[in-house]
Amino acid sequence: MDIERIGGGAKGRSSGTAYGGLVWAVAVDPKSSPSMVDQTRGALARIDEILAKAGTNKSRILNATVYVSVMDKKDEMDVAWVEWAGDDPKGWAQRACVGTKLAPGHLVEIVVIAARET
Amino acid sequence: MDIERIGGGAKGRSSGTAYGGLVWAVAVDPKSSPSMVDQTRGALARIDEILAKAGTNKSRILNATVYVSVMDKKDEMDVAWVEWAGDDPKGWAQRACVGTKLAPGHLVEIVVIAARET
Amino acid sequence: MDIERIGGGAKGRSSGTAYGGLVWAVAVDPKSSPSMVDQTRGALARIDEILAKAGTNKSRILNATVYVSVMDKKDEMDVAWVEWAGDDPKGWAQRACVGTKLAPGHLVEIVVIAARET
Repeated sequence: MDIERIGGGAKGRSSGTAYGGLVWAVAVDPKSSPSMVDQTRGALARIDEILAKAGTNKSRILNATVYVSVMDKKDEMDVAWVEWAGDDPKGWAQRACVGTKLAPGHLVEIVVIAARET
Repeated sequence: MDIERIGGGAKGRSSGTAYGGLVWAVAVDPKSSPSMVDQTRGALARIDEILAKAGTNKSRILNATVYVSVMDKKDEMDVAWVEWAGDDPKGWAQRACVGTKLAPGHLVEIVVIAARET
Repeated sequence: MDIERIGGGAKGRSSGTAYGGLVWAVAVDPKSSPSMVDQTRGALARIDEILAKAGTNKSRILNATVYVSVMDKKDEMDVAWVEWAGDDPKGWAQRACVGTKLAPGHLVEIVVIAARET
């Protein structure tokens, strides 16, 4: 079974991969906005794009890891997350949020695993 | 193929998800015990609960990520982990343990991916 | 469906697991070299070994998480990563690199999920 690769990352890596019924995606805010809310919105919009290229969408995310570089701003990240996740629990991913160092300028980086129809 | 969601988290997220033969689960200690050993036991007991709801158990965990907020207490986490993992290597997950910031009061947060019969 | 376990870790955990078409692997540099480039090469060589035991290889990695304990040395990690990932984008994993604390002596720890033929 073939692996699909979605480009857009630096040399040596993909922004997304898909294999059978599963899709992986990683994103940061392409604009490196100064605010955590805006960076989260930017990263989640990028996740939406990658999932669309792989034939799925945010309502089918299974697992998400949210890395934030400033844990004191987790609440701001959550504002954008809840807005994006929507009101239907049938679309809510299992999620962990942890504070880590990130590359300069990044406040948040998000990795998800989603299901797709095959 | 449907995705199953196991609730119990905050708005916008699930404690567990299941899709086909795979299950994802996240847990912290619901009691926020002051000791790392106790928090780890509490989080692992919660993992057991979520896996049971998804029709599997700890002997079928494939991958685990253990986030600890105080790396100096990793040995205490390991005491609870080894006790929980048991003596049979056939049930031992691939695991990584890393030191990250966590939400206030949490010493450990655990994410696992497990297999289940379909 | 059986789960395959690849040993080599400490008590209570495996270095790798395989289930159906998916393989999980974790590695650090077995030699704990003092340089980030060398530790990354050592960890990636160990990943190669585990994947080989599970019947796959680096060109089929779907997702990678690179934990580095010194984010200022991420560029050195990337030198080894790019060299290892090779020139063909068809083999490039979705990857996230974050700065975390690691066990003493470790500069980098790598976890991957790969596809394999079943």
